[in-house]
Amino acid sequence: MEFSSKLIEKAVNEISQLPGIGKRSALRLVLHLLKQPKEQTGFLAQALVNMREDIKYCTNCHNISDSTICEICANKNRNHQIVCVVEDIRDVMAIENTGQFRGVYHVLGGKISPIDGVGPSQLRIATLVEKVKSGSINEVIFALSSTMEGDTTNFYIYKQIADAAIVISTIARGIAVGDELEYADEVTLGRSILQRVPFEKSFKNN
Amino acid sequence: MEFSSKLIEKAVNEISQLPGIGKRSALRLVLHLLKQPKEQTGFLAQALVNMREDIKYCTNCHNISDSTICEICANKNRNHQIVCVVEDIRDVMAIENTGQFRGVYHVLGGKISPIDGVGPSQLRIATLVEKVKSGSINEVIFALSSTMEGDTTNFYIYKQIADAAIVISTIARGIAVGDELEYADEVTLGRSILQRVPFEKSFKNN
Ligand SMILES: [Zn+2]
Ligand SMILES: [Zn+2]
Repeated sequence: MEFSSKLIEKAVNEISQLPGIGKRSALRLVLHLLKQPKEQTGFLAQALVNMREDIKYCTNCHNISDSTICEICANKNRNHQIVCVVEDIRDVMAIENTGQFRGVYHVLGGKISPIDGVGPSQLRIATLVEKVKSGSINEVIFALSSTMEGDTTNFYIYKQIADAAIVISTIARGIAVGDELEYADEVTLGRSILQRVPFEKSFKNN
Repeated sequence: MEFSSKLIEKAVNEISQLPGIGKRSALRLVLHLLKQPKEQTGFLAQALVNMREDIKYCTNCHNISDSTICEICANKNRNHQIVCVVEDIRDVMAIENTGQFRGVYHVLGGKISPIDGVGPSQLRIATLVEKVKSGSINEVIFALSSTMEGDTTNFYIYKQIADAAIVISTIARGIAVGDELEYADEVTLGRSILQRVPFEKSFKNN
């Protein structure tokens, strides 16, 4: 693609580094911004920079937060002995949306995926194992997507906490195997939380 | 959608104002940026602001440019008596890419579209008519998409320049009717430029 403007070219190149946005789409977005008031581009740019510069991660559950302890971890009305293990903030949002879960979360920040170069050390697994070993937890619920990466991650963690005197469960497979958690409807996802099954049972039946 | 972070919420809201990007996609882009170095978000934001603040439009052809006269209009080796009328910079890029056109452009900035609230006065039509009436042009080539809006725009302009002693042509309809110009392959689009037909012929046969 040859551009008549270096300014356009730079903007298109930066936008098209985002996943799922090619150069044609990026150019379309740029032309859209040019038709809008300058302020809109300013607000967009400022919101991105503020977000990236000032974002924090909850020191307890690693969820994205505006403070060092997230609202969920700071809530004394929630059951801090039940910890739901999820991949990222989208899954927290999806489960919170069901209104069925009153425990807390542990956000791994991804799944083990050798193809994508994500190993266990890049995920927040060690702090989860520590929490379990400290004896402050009654139950760990695995709520990763039921994909091969999700299953691998569940099992990797399970091996490290299996001998602790806690319940280890997974959300019920009301969600179709292979589906992403965040696209499940609220009723199905809520039921998966309520009907969680012992982790051992979930893989022994396969 | 409820967010655990106002910073995330603001960024998602700004991104999802862009056409074709919903809140889910915006959140995915935000999470992607959070996994990248801070600099990437900084570069993206700066490129957008620079583009929006400093962009110019060629005072001659209205194409997007970094200077007041674009490179094409400033090129003395091009034939300034043949003017190709297009919708926006994407069409200029597509035609330049064919290497078949050595004239210059006139960028309307859109098509007449009552549904989208775009009337003739919002397009750069008056300056095109002036150029024709000044006698400095031999030929006007209409290269808008062959949609109803494109045809309406062609005809609106045609009525104002039909009595000038110039050739008025349209690009050959090698491109499928209804297709957007920018998606045509180079060979087809190049042929459409070379085999342009008198404008009268293009609508009398319909
Ligand atoms: Zn937290
Ligand atoms: Zn120009």
